[in-house]
Amino acid sequence: MMTTNPTPQTAVFGASGYAGAELARLLLRHPKLQGRAPIFFGREDAGESVALAALHPQLADNNGTGSLRVEPFRWAALRERNVNVVFLATPHEQSRAWVPSLLSHGVRVIDLSGAWRLQQAENRAVYKFEDADAALAASIQQRAVYGMPELHRSALPHAQIVANPGCYATTVILGLAPLLRAGWADLERGIVCDAKSGVSGAGKAPSAKTHFMYAADNLSAYSVFGHRHTGELLEQLNVQPQQIIFAPHLLPIPRGILATLYVQLRAPKQAAEIAECFRSFYADSPMVRLHGESLPQIQHVAHTNFCDIGFALARDGQRLIVVSCLDNLLKGAAGQAVQNMNLLFGWQEHEGLL
Amino acid sequence: MMTTNPTPQTAVFGASGYAGAELARLLLRHPKLQGRAPIFFGREDAGESVALAALHPQLADNNGTGSLRVEPFRWAALRERNVNVVFLATPHEQSRAWVPSLLSHGVRVIDLSGAWRLQQAENRAVYKFEDADAALAASIQQRAVYGMPELHRSALPHAQIVANPGCYATTVILGLAPLLRAGWADLERGIVCDAKSGVSGAGKAPSAKTHFMYAADNLSAYSVFGHRHTGELLEQLNVQPQQIIFAPHLLPIPRGILATLYVQLRAPKQAAEIAECFRSFYADSPMVRLHGESLPQIQHVAHTNFCDIGFALARDGQRLIVVSCLDNLLKGAAGQAVQNMNLLFGWQEHEGLL
Amino acid sequence: MMTTNPTPQTAVFGASGYAGAELARLLLRHPKLQGRAPIFFGREDAGESVALAALHPQLADNNGTGSLRVEPFRWAALRERNVNVVFLATPHEQSRAWVPSLLSHGVRVIDLSGAWRLQQAENRAVYKFEDADAALAASIQQRAVYGMPELHRSALPHAQIVANPGCYATTVILGLAPLLRAGWADLERGIVCDAKSGVSGAGKAPSAKTHFMYAADNLSAYSVFGHRHTGELLEQLNVQPQQIIFAPHLLPIPRGILATLYVQLRAPKQAAEIAECFRSFYADSPMVRLHGESLPQIQHVAHTNFCDIGFALARDGQRLIVVSCLDNLLKGAAGQAVQNMNLLFGWQEHEGLL
Amino acid sequence: MMTTNPTPQTAVFGASGYAGAELARLLLRHPKLQGRAPIFFGREDAGESVALAALHPQLADNNGTGSLRVEPFRWAALRERNVNVVFLATPHEQSRAWVPSLLSHGVRVIDLSGAWRLQQAENRAVYKFEDADAALAASIQQRAVYGMPELHRSALPHAQIVANPGCYATTVILGLAPLLRAGWADLERGIVCDAKSGVSGAGKAPSAKTHFMYAADNLSAYSVFGHRHTGELLEQLNVQPQQIIFAPHLLPIPRGILATLYVQLRAPKQAAEIAECFRSFYADSPMVRLHGESLPQIQHVAHTNFCDIGFALARDGQRLIVVSCLDNLLKGAAGQAVQNMNLLFGWQEHEGLL
Repeated sequence: MMTTNPTPQTAVFGASGYAGAELARLLLRHPKLQGRAPIFFGREDAGESVALAALHPQLADNNGTGSLRVEPFRWAALRERNVNVVFLATPHEQSRAWVPSLLSHGVRVIDLSGAWRLQQAENRAVYKFEDADAALAASIQQRAVYGMPELHRSALPHAQIVANPGCYATTVILGLAPLLRAGWADLERGIVCDAKSGVSGAGKAPSAKTHFMYAADNLSAYSVFGHRHTGELLEQLNVQPQQIIFAPHLLPIPRGILATLYVQLRAPKQAAEIAECFRSFYADSPMVRLHGESLPQIQHVAHTNFCDIGFALARDGQRLIVVSCLDNLLKGAAGQAVQNMNLLFGWQEHEGLL
Repeated sequence: MMTTNPTPQTAVFGASGYAGAELARLLLRHPKLQGRAPIFFGREDAGESVALAALHPQLADNNGTGSLRVEPFRWAALRERNVNVVFLATPHEQSRAWVPSLLSHGVRVIDLSGAWRLQQAENRAVYKFEDADAALAASIQQRAVYGMPELHRSALPHAQIVANPGCYATTVILGLAPLLRAGWADLERGIVCDAKSGVSGAGKAPSAKTHFMYAADNLSAYSVFGHRHTGELLEQLNVQPQQIIFAPHLLPIPRGILATLYVQLRAPKQAAEIAECFRSFYADSPMVRLHGESLPQIQHVAHTNFCDIGFALARDGQRLIVVSCLDNLLKGAAGQAVQNMNLLFGWQEHEGLL
Repeated sequence: MMTTNPTPQTAVFGASGYAGAELARLLLRHPKLQGRAPIFFGREDAGESVALAALHPQLADNNGTGSLRVEPFRWAALRERNVNVVFLATPHEQSRAWVPSLLSHGVRVIDLSGAWRLQQAENRAVYKFEDADAALAASIQQRAVYGMPELHRSALPHAQIVANPGCYATTVILGLAPLLRAGWADLERGIVCDAKSGVSGAGKAPSAKTHFMYAADNLSAYSVFGHRHTGELLEQLNVQPQQIIFAPHLLPIPRGILATLYVQLRAPKQAAEIAECFRSFYADSPMVRLHGESLPQIQHVAHTNFCDIGFALARDGQRLIVVSCLDNLLKGAAGQAVQNMNLLFGWQEHEGLL
Repeated sequence: MMTTNPTPQTAVFGASGYAGAELARLLLRHPKLQGRAPIFFGREDAGESVALAALHPQLADNNGTGSLRVEPFRWAALRERNVNVVFLATPHEQSRAWVPSLLSHGVRVIDLSGAWRLQQAENRAVYKFEDADAALAASIQQRAVYGMPELHRSALPHAQIVANPGCYATTVILGLAPLLRAGWADLERGIVCDAKSGVSGAGKAPSAKTHFMYAADNLSAYSVFGHRHTGELLEQLNVQPQQIIFAPHLLPIPRGILATLYVQLRAPKQAAEIAECFRSFYADSPMVRLHGESLPQIQHVAHTNFCDIGFALARDGQRLIVVSCLDNLLKGAAGQAVQNMNLLFGWQEHEGLL
């Protein structure tokens, strides 16, 4: 495909939110997309177009970006304008409803919502999807690739539909996967995932909980035992619900997630063994930075696409704390979506992300 | 009045907002109101009562406050329960509509909204009041006392209706009044009032501008040349619109206002003269703290009812910067309302406010 | 003692820090101390006195507090001025060194540092105390009462030396004590204490980690497996080091601690049983507020002396999350010190704290 | 020069601060510098080299940047390694002392400090420079070009020494220059510049004023009438000291400056005339974004190299408020330095800055 037209045409639905703004910014400056700006689509047939810079003044410049507009969507536009890949930064209901048609139009889809991430019906239940064509949805679901390059690097180049992971899920899974794949964690004793996220994770809609007066100078836990990202942990880490606790907290910061992960090892290990376990697992992963026995912080991953991971091991060699952190709008959303796009088109995984 | 029942009965409308919470806190611990908790009224006849602690968990305790409730309002309750004074922490439309009836029920009113602050019709125009009985409203308006004890201390003890000042207006007026009353400011050259407020000043309703992601890590000017508090400056300072510029800004902090006031003096003065001008003006004002030539900061007035004032004078003795700051929910709202109540009942002005 | 002089004379060492400021504020407005302001002592013989309001401008007022000064300390002053109780808001080395002499002068001591909290030498080791008279220190240590009224209410009235608990320790111990005393926790599976504190907990000395640019928009874990408050958890909760993990984090807020506590129960329980366990344990504790199955937040305890506790129980009835939070400068330091003073003098435990 | 070696060699002194980190980031990803990373020099002969990523973990990656080091400086290294341009992110004393030698080594210098910005001795006095060779310093001073491309675009390509402007000065000058050059401002009535800056402007050294507890939830004015950037305003805007007031404030945010500029016009103007005045002045300036009659905010310039400018005009057509804002570490420091480098080498002014 790439031979006939070296520069793919991207399209973005849902550019008005926080992840949408980051996606626009990354795609506009992506080295492989120069000369072919993304098309920004609004809701189907919804009246007038609006300037992208009116939605996100930070994206305006003096020489052209200012002319980009969010256009009303027509299905015919996908073929007329030779769209190759569509990013959905839309609510999960809309992503679930639209993907079948999008795929039938021959475009590849990278969906940033939770619509296609979960293979098991019991995990999907929390979303209450109502599929118009259940058999078709099931078939698409089965083909959907969970868009975490560090775990599914080989499947992604061929994916038609990429389910971009949840921000919390990315943080926790990257922090635990090496240990769990190695079989080192004592699952019977339980894994505790205490996660903290900045407010952008709660979305742009004003609400009591996103009010400055609620979030500022505060910390609160929420959705403990019931957060929608829990299913992603279970499926990707292959653990049972009773083996893991996931408790999210709302931090008074704009962006960033830090997860403190408490693991008890089946047998005592040296710190060097832990470090090596992570190092070998992420040897080919340019977007994971390993800090060994020092603990990473949100300030160093904000505005980057990196996931930083470090750990501390108790003297007994068994009680282990892993700290994993990332920018929820980048590695936790738009940045990971671009990383997936890079794999779809055979580019370097970190292209446009450093 | 005080002889027959030494402890007045207070009532609060609009306890659900930020100023309402501070008002509840101050009244509940006010030394002169012990044994007679305020009555909290919700909207007229509006169904069930709700626990005050459900609205403001910080007000809950283990021994009684937790039992206070916000009750549906009935007009008859005012007399049945011998209410002496009503605090209105309600939108200005509601305050404008209700005050005539409240006064006719024999209660005194301290209104925290902008409904009764402005004597001149052209200044009131911005509120677009629609009075059911214009003559009655005009008569009440004329009797309303602007509730700034530092300027109207002698009129307040006899007031039936107190118009509690705006938060910005309090900050600016207290910073300028001594100089303007002394006739020292060169009004022809214009006074600049650059004011900055925390987010609680924008109210509790979630909106795009109170979203954490909008306010945090940001600063924005708004309503320049058109803020509703401007009329209070004009009337209380007795200046013309073209002689003063008032520009508010939204600060990424929960509470506090700081106004930087730029004044050019008609004749050069010594710093000691400026200091003395303020000192003599506020000699009897327990809630104003003067810092002389050092500049006050928000952190030292937050959670207090003080207005802190300091200044810097250029070497030419004519260009003067006054900095005035206070807590917008206390001296800028609920605290000043309690200060006014103290004057209504002949108590020490700072009773319950230190 | 109280019969001859109903108002005790208090003295404060170390009023320049954050806890010192809160202590000054609480003591100055304490109903039982009216008419007898605390004496504020600086370092021994250290030159000039300094105005308290110069250290803490927020404490200044227009009618007297402004005249309070921090005086150079002389040992003779303790008897000359009939000091009854001394608060030490000093570094632990100083508290450890001074307490023997203070006790020998007949004053009672409430020490806010870590100097006297730990009975077991191996837990104390982290402080590296060098006692001039080891036998005397050991004897005093044995008599020191851990100043958590909820656990040691009966011993406190008779204490000569009160070791005021650490802020993190207070948060965690109050959240766990009812369950551990009931024997419900499965200690073999381990308890995880993920705690988050505002920056005031790090003290007033400027450092790389208290720089605004380090703390703001950030979250970082620190001192995992090695924080000095860990020994308090072990001694007060009677658990072994390998049975508990305590990991503190630095929050980008001025004040407040929230601890998320992960406990696995030995046998399944109903939520109502958990609630009742806490309710009965804290039945006589006015400074603990129980939220049942809703989770408390920092914003509702900031600027109060309450510890708020709530919990969430997994459907299996065994995995339990307890959230405990408080204001680190009040219930975590100065407020709890005043609570202890109230018990020393036989006053209501919450006197001056609501 | 560029023909023989198309990629210049850059060197950076002072990479350890906030501006240094941004400079490193910008230079490392600059399209015209690919394949030739900057050399980072520490203090002369100062022992061991240190990894750049140890100073700024956010700059680390998995494939190379991590290997960059800050090397001890030797003068001979400048020629051995063919350094073309040196960025000085060093204290002004050091910049003043080193520039003569640097120039004599044939390198061009872009100095981010205040060492060479001021042509008039009375403005420079505030820095208290002690030049070893006064005549040489005077000669260099005269040749130094004030590095604001919007005002000195034609002189910059030939500059040997570029004095990169102060962050506050850039904000204020860009907001006022068009009006003052047009002769529209009534200087007799005075211009008020109320400026607010994030904490990174205060530098990385921990101090009482950069402590999180001082800056957070606070706002304070400082250095009014005496800030070191004032001289830049006077010289670049060609105004007299008594014609302008500049008052800086410390904002509780990491980065960004917003200046609210109050100007009285000599004659009434239409808003369209004001807009056109700015538009024509900045027609060739890619890093200035004009917002017309809407007011820009810090959130939209943070992490960009843009200066955003908007205005509000009173109904009288004479009282004008201009709001100008930028990121103090980018357009106010490192970004503008790179913009100047682009002009030195004849590249597009915004190369590597969008």
